[in-house]
Amino acid sequence: MLKFYFAPQTCALASHLALEEAGAAYEALRVDFSKNEQRSSEFLKINPKGRVPVLATDHGILTETPAILFYIAQTHPQAKLAPLEDPFALGRIQAFNSYLCSTVHVAHAHMIRGYRWADDPAAIAEMKRKAPETVAACFTLIETEMFVGPFVMGEKFTIADPYLFTLATWLEGDGVDPARFPKVLDHRNRMLERPAFKKVVAAHN
Amino acid sequence: MLKFYFAPQTCALASHLALEEAGAAYEALRVDFSKNEQRSSEFLKINPKGRVPVLATDHGILTETPAILFYIAQTHPQAKLAPLEDPFALGRIQAFNSYLCSTVHVAHAHMIRGYRWADDPAAIAEMKRKAPETVAACFTLIETEMFVGPFVMGEKFTIADPYLFTLATWLEGDGVDPARFPKVLDHRNRMLERPAFKKVVAAHN
Repeated sequence: MLKFYFAPQTCALASHLALEEAGAAYEALRVDFSKNEQRSSEFLKINPKGRVPVLATDHGILTETPAILFYIAQTHPQAKLAPLEDPFALGRIQAFNSYLCSTVHVAHAHMIRGYRWADDPAAIAEMKRKAPETVAACFTLIETEMFVGPFVMGEKFTIADPYLFTLATWLEGDGVDPARFPKVLDHRNRMLERPAFKKVVAAHN
Repeated sequence: MLKFYFAPQTCALASHLALEEAGAAYEALRVDFSKNEQRSSEFLKINPKGRVPVLATDHGILTETPAILFYIAQTHPQAKLAPLEDPFALGRIQAFNSYLCSTVHVAHAHMIRGYRWADDPAAIAEMKRKAPETVAACFTLIETEMFVGPFVMGEKFTIADPYLFTLATWLEGDGVDPARFPKVLDHRNRMLERPAFKKVVAAHN
């Protein structure tokens, strides 16, 4: 059975939601960031990056949200979480998820984890000050150029939906009013009505 | 025919290399960053993000390196650039490429594009100062934990190889001595012996 390592308030929520939507057989294991468990020697043996999410499969460990999401979709084809045999449609999903991990999540990280890229407290404070602007710029692009509707990629729920949902739940904490992005906000509200989302979000709160 | 938009000294090199390795039929179109062409209204119609790489297919536009790399692999199966039917092996490649785009490329961007995340020149200078340390930390993890050899993922060339190669060519510019990472440096040198790499690297220089 799959083992899934997560921590609340992290992007692990996206993969957790996908596991539940896929009807996967998995065990969810909470890593306690308040005790710095992600840096423990035990956890670093599982993931040397010291981060979540981690999906432990029968073959070995997978990390990184876009990779885990695609793995879940590919190994649970009956759930139809991605158009596996349509390279262009799949490429659009992968491009969207890549944008989330490389640009949107990174913009957010400057709000709370500026120490990754600077030591000087003044520089870290300056990153935090600018983060709402860069996060809002990302969501403007998503709202106006990327989001198709009613789901991220159009008529079907895909692995892009739990990932956008996850990052959209961070908007208020990033100092950005979600009402500026009506499509994203409506999507966030509708996703919360899905049974799988209700169950997993409750486990993270 | 595929149209591929690139600029020298960018991560577009990775996708360009993969197109060539795949034997794809494509036209390469250079975007002149010195004239800020990536922000021109003409280019923004193609890619509202104002960035490269962009792959224009018969179905529409694809962006983001990991997505383009996977699309090339999936649409050119005869080139065997990824184990398309092995979800775990494929997941490992996707995880590696996700790490490159979300963490390694981002660490590098703080060396030269700190203005994305701060306005204060002192903060931007502080990011630049720390960038060699964060880039080196990423490559330490790649060298000790991720790189299998002789190719990134083991015995076969995959879409992880041109991407690692591309980011490894930035090491000197990032103030990091590549000799600290013997496996990565040896891989970089061996990749340069491949005809496809010779051809594409020449076009970028």
